[in-house]
Amino acid sequence: MINLWDYEAAAKSNLTEMLWNFYAGGAWDEVTVRENVAAFAQLYLRPHVLNNVEQRNLQVTVLSRPLRFPVAVSPTAFQRLAHPNGELATVRAAASLGTLMAASTFSNNSLEEIAAARDAVNKLAPLWFQLYPLRDRGWVRTLVQRAQSAGYAAICVTVDTAVSGRRERDLHTPLTPPADMVLGNFSDFPLKMDTHSLIQHVTNQVDPSFGWQDIRWLRSITSLPIVLKGILRGDDAAKAVDHGVAGLFVSNHGGRQLDGAIPTIRALPEVVAAAKGYAEVYLDSGIRRGTDVLKALALGARCVFIGRPAVWGLSVDGEAGVRHVLELLGHELSLAMALCGCASVAEIDRSLVA
Amino acid sequence: MINLWDYEAAAKSNLTEMLWNFYAGGAWDEVTVRENVAAFAQLYLRPHVLNNVEQRNLQVTVLSRPLRFPVAVSPTAFQRLAHPNGELATVRAAASLGTLMAASTFSNNSLEEIAAARDAVNKLAPLWFQLYPLRDRGWVRTLVQRAQSAGYAAICVTVDTAVSGRRERDLHTPLTPPADMVLGNFSDFPLKMDTHSLIQHVTNQVDPSFGWQDIRWLRSITSLPIVLKGILRGDDAAKAVDHGVAGLFVSNHGGRQLDGAIPTIRALPEVVAAAKGYAEVYLDSGIRRGTDVLKALALGARCVFIGRPAVWGLSVDGEAGVRHVLELLGHELSLAMALCGCASVAEIDRSLVA
Amino acid sequence: MINLWDYEAAAKSNLTEMLWNFYAGGAWDEVTVRENVAAFAQLYLRPHVLNNVEQRNLQVTVLSRPLRFPVAVSPTAFQRLAHPNGELATVRAAASLGTLMAASTFSNNSLEEIAAARDAVNKLAPLWFQLYPLRDRGWVRTLVQRAQSAGYAAICVTVDTAVSGRRERDLHTPLTPPADMVLGNFSDFPLKMDTHSLIQHVTNQVDPSFGWQDIRWLRSITSLPIVLKGILRGDDAAKAVDHGVAGLFVSNHGGRQLDGAIPTIRALPEVVAAAKGYAEVYLDSGIRRGTDVLKALALGARCVFIGRPAVWGLSVDGEAGVRHVLELLGHELSLAMALCGCASVAEIDRSLVA
Amino acid sequence: MINLWDYEAAAKSNLTEMLWNFYAGGAWDEVTVRENVAAFAQLYLRPHVLNNVEQRNLQVTVLSRPLRFPVAVSPTAFQRLAHPNGELATVRAAASLGTLMAASTFSNNSLEEIAAARDAVNKLAPLWFQLYPLRDRGWVRTLVQRAQSAGYAAICVTVDTAVSGRRERDLHTPLTPPADMVLGNFSDFPLKMDTHSLIQHVTNQVDPSFGWQDIRWLRSITSLPIVLKGILRGDDAAKAVDHGVAGLFVSNHGGRQLDGAIPTIRALPEVVAAAKGYAEVYLDSGIRRGTDVLKALALGARCVFIGRPAVWGLSVDGEAGVRHVLELLGHELSLAMALCGCASVAEIDRSLVA
Repeated sequence: MINLWDYEAAAKSNLTEMLWNFYAGGAWDEVTVRENVAAFAQLYLRPHVLNNVEQRNLQVTVLSRPLRFPVAVSPTAFQRLAHPNGELATVRAAASLGTLMAASTFSNNSLEEIAAARDAVNKLAPLWFQLYPLRDRGWVRTLVQRAQSAGYAAICVTVDTAVSGRRERDLHTPLTPPADMVLGNFSDFPLKMDTHSLIQHVTNQVDPSFGWQDIRWLRSITSLPIVLKGILRGDDAAKAVDHGVAGLFVSNHGGRQLDGAIPTIRALPEVVAAAKGYAEVYLDSGIRRGTDVLKALALGARCVFIGRPAVWGLSVDGEAGVRHVLELLGHELSLAMALCGCASVAEIDRSLVA
Repeated sequence: MINLWDYEAAAKSNLTEMLWNFYAGGAWDEVTVRENVAAFAQLYLRPHVLNNVEQRNLQVTVLSRPLRFPVAVSPTAFQRLAHPNGELATVRAAASLGTLMAASTFSNNSLEEIAAARDAVNKLAPLWFQLYPLRDRGWVRTLVQRAQSAGYAAICVTVDTAVSGRRERDLHTPLTPPADMVLGNFSDFPLKMDTHSLIQHVTNQVDPSFGWQDIRWLRSITSLPIVLKGILRGDDAAKAVDHGVAGLFVSNHGGRQLDGAIPTIRALPEVVAAAKGYAEVYLDSGIRRGTDVLKALALGARCVFIGRPAVWGLSVDGEAGVRHVLELLGHELSLAMALCGCASVAEIDRSLVA
Repeated sequence: MINLWDYEAAAKSNLTEMLWNFYAGGAWDEVTVRENVAAFAQLYLRPHVLNNVEQRNLQVTVLSRPLRFPVAVSPTAFQRLAHPNGELATVRAAASLGTLMAASTFSNNSLEEIAAARDAVNKLAPLWFQLYPLRDRGWVRTLVQRAQSAGYAAICVTVDTAVSGRRERDLHTPLTPPADMVLGNFSDFPLKMDTHSLIQHVTNQVDPSFGWQDIRWLRSITSLPIVLKGILRGDDAAKAVDHGVAGLFVSNHGGRQLDGAIPTIRALPEVVAAAKGYAEVYLDSGIRRGTDVLKALALGARCVFIGRPAVWGLSVDGEAGVRHVLELLGHELSLAMALCGCASVAEIDRSLVA
Repeated sequence: MINLWDYEAAAKSNLTEMLWNFYAGGAWDEVTVRENVAAFAQLYLRPHVLNNVEQRNLQVTVLSRPLRFPVAVSPTAFQRLAHPNGELATVRAAASLGTLMAASTFSNNSLEEIAAARDAVNKLAPLWFQLYPLRDRGWVRTLVQRAQSAGYAAICVTVDTAVSGRRERDLHTPLTPPADMVLGNFSDFPLKMDTHSLIQHVTNQVDPSFGWQDIRWLRSITSLPIVLKGILRGDDAAKAVDHGVAGLFVSNHGGRQLDGAIPTIRALPEVVAAAKGYAEVYLDSGIRRGTDVLKALALGARCVFIGRPAVWGLSVDGEAGVRHVLELLGHELSLAMALCGCASVAEIDRSLVA
């Protein structure tokens, strides 16, 4: 297992076809799934030489919290489908490496269990709570307050799921989760139904009328910084800044929502420009190599997130798999920085990318 | 059957090789057939987020007549070749969904039968009569007057068939229609010949000398609005507006006429710009997904038309097949609009396409 | 046999591997061979509609001599290798269609025999004499004077063969012509050698020191107009005009000389611009379809030439094969003109190509 | 063996898989390995005609030393892995053709042996000593002084190896050199270890803190001109000139260090522009044809170097193989110059490349 492609191949052979398709699939013709990755390869690096790069410092801060290196874990739902230890394995991997994990609204473990697992490993590793904007604002309020109480560092609102993207692989091999799967964050809610209906029900709770005014409301119910995940345009980025958003997460949901959406690395520059430094900018969707991380940082991202690659690691070897995937990217980034003449993340500038 | 590709595959396996080649084929090397589809994939979408998209309104008006959604059926000849119910199946499908069908000059059913079938389903669904410019202006006058009497909403003049495109597949597997095939609109004409000669004869009636002055003449013989189908240039669009044309239909005949012709989605912007709002603009040739519809609307089309996909639906399941193909596109468009932050067609603007 | 690809395939199966490779091969990696053809497909056509195109006039004049349509035959050597009737078959085909053939210095038939064959068919069809710039200026003078005496209309000097391109297929399957092969134009010269040595000897006669001052000298020894074949740059085009050249033939020798040379259709516009109307411009290398001819005319060529396709026709069916290949292109051009709204070559303008 | 591809194929079948992978491999996904070659093919040539090119003079000077033609040999380590005669074979080949070889710090033969072999063949052929910037500046000083004493013409400092690129093929088939392999330049050093540990040890000696100030120091310890190998940016080129560097070697180490690095032929123009004539510019990485050499010269390189192709020749046929590879490129360049109308290297200008 020497790179992320090895993890992808191992995950493909480990997982059932149903689960593989659930993770690998994208919306409609999967154009964006492919273009996300291809767009990185179309950018050339312009390395500097003869800088002292013996010691490389990969540390960054994200919303004032230090990460040992700028690769974090994107929120993904139902991680027990990939491994029995689910989100607990993932958070232990991230925390042990001093980096950030974003826990999904639809985690199998509760957000409190995830936070406790983090605390047991490394209290300083930040956690974000990924929030799906649910119709029942009471639930939203409760989830946000629980996240704040449990020590989460930010609320990361997914804004690209007004409706569910149509993933046609799932129509051919529908996801049928095991009967005993629980939604950790919803065990207190009076939901008496089988697993499938439960998921259906909660998914339908995602609110397509959730809007900018709700961002204001969110800010009024929590002191945590708000991150919007799914921003792909400069004008929306500027509007988010006007609404007091602290972080702009450039994402197309790994190509799982709107097929044909612009690859994130191409959308990044206009979001960075529009943010004007008033909000931090992050990116996921398509990162497979340390050089991809470097390109995103060069174009203005503060850190990047990985979704599918973390799941590959999780399905192959649980906590150790996630950790190895993160370590591989961190090591590759360190090498790439050295070969570009950058001893610290601050030295990575836009001129490195052609 | 979850998308148009499924219908394409089913049609290919249902139809004889001769008929498949007749429908799938294009002129010469079929470059334009392929580029029509590929050109859509080369445009990226730049979605908005956090708009209220719970209710989406896909309604548009076409020449002041409402369509429930902006996907209509392009004229195609001899629909009984694809299904025994021919044009009647197609019109029932379109009308039942509240959208528009354009009936071909060379339909198997007469234009009056088609109109009657529409009336039986949904009198409000508009019908267009597609007119081939025939040498015999008497025939043209008669057809136009019959269409007006039968309640058609517009005359859609095909202007890209001065001569027949050379479809080389047809030279290898020549189209030999059944002996009892009728040309519904020409049963009154004194044509005593076998089917093959009949088609040959009528096809040869298309007039390569038909010109701008004939558009003036057409306007003088009918009060129906005139649409020109086959416009690919801004200067021709402006000339059409000067000649009182109400609609500009950007089409390259699905790549069946001039191979190498510019893909329609690339020609659309200059036609829209030249129309300056004095004429509506439509598009066909290459639409396979709801995101393609969205891209065309973003670039200024008022609605799009589908040719081959409707025939695929027709050949697979008659009226139900055409309806399902239209529904799939309508549903995909609705999802794509939601994911782009557009609650109505009016909110789809040019900035959505990069 | 419905298009040039059919002739290519038939020629490939008819010819020995040695001969196929001799004709199909190009220099080094054959990049230019492929790009010549591909470059046409990358240009889109922007057709006009509603012009009267019932009667199409494909006639052009080339150096004041009318051609019935703007497709002529490029010079190619040793045509008896492809068919026993050699150049006589080719010239009869071209002349019978009222178009131009350029006869090679290294023809099997003598230039006088070729002229006589032309005269027997159609005295009005112009002939060009293709001149390799030989070291022995006496030979050159003799050849030019013979061409003038025999009624040739122009001297077409090949200027892209200062040295022989390295066609690596020929190194694998060397061309070994039959022992009785004659060089028709050199039978009077005191050459007593076997065929292979003869070809070697005469090929080595091509003079790499031939320069602009020799063009002046050529003009001094003949009243025939001079055409330079192998011009690919505007500055050389301007220099040629300054030297009194009447025609600029944009050619990269079908990719057989300098691999990586710019595709002719891409070089054409700058040559046309530099000629400023003081010289006519022609093009070969990559023409396979009538739409290719149309694109070349739109970008300023007065007529185009075909090399390999004529040889394919010749090898498949002698005179009839060459004639059919020319007819196919003429017919395709006629259709393409009609579909672009052009009733005559004069109506083909630059705006047709995007 | 008629071109470099033949040598590549022969080397692949001659060498063990381990060695083939060692030579062919590149960093990470080998994008830059492929793009180096592909980038040349994307540049078109714009040949001149009718210049006298009978005599071509390919001579250039490199740091005031004449080369018979502008193709030299890049430094590569451990050449005995490819052929028992190692660097001695390579230097004899280069010297016998009057061109330059750069000898690697990590040669099997000592730099003095290499210089002696050169002297025996052609004292006028220049030699460069490739210097890895080692941690122990005493070793560096010694090596530089030995090179100067042995008659080397320049010190060529490799500046793109601050850390070792990760070549994943080597992880699958690790390079295990024979036990008796010696590092010719380090036999005097007190290193008592097995071969593998020795290489490991010396490789680890490459100093990632080596910087611009060390270039100044290098200049202070030798009167030889300094060349920096691995420059890919104009700003670094300008800085090098400011530090008194005589030569800028545009290289990405054949794609073996930073995957995604810009192809050298694309980086060349900005380095040439930044050098402003104060330093000579060279290029390697991707040269496979004489036309590639011509393109590099047209864009401002004074000469080019070959790495892998020389090793292919070496592995196939020792000295004769290297010589033939160089001769092939020289011959191809000569033909390409003739076909571009250039009788000397001075006539190759930027306008030849589009």
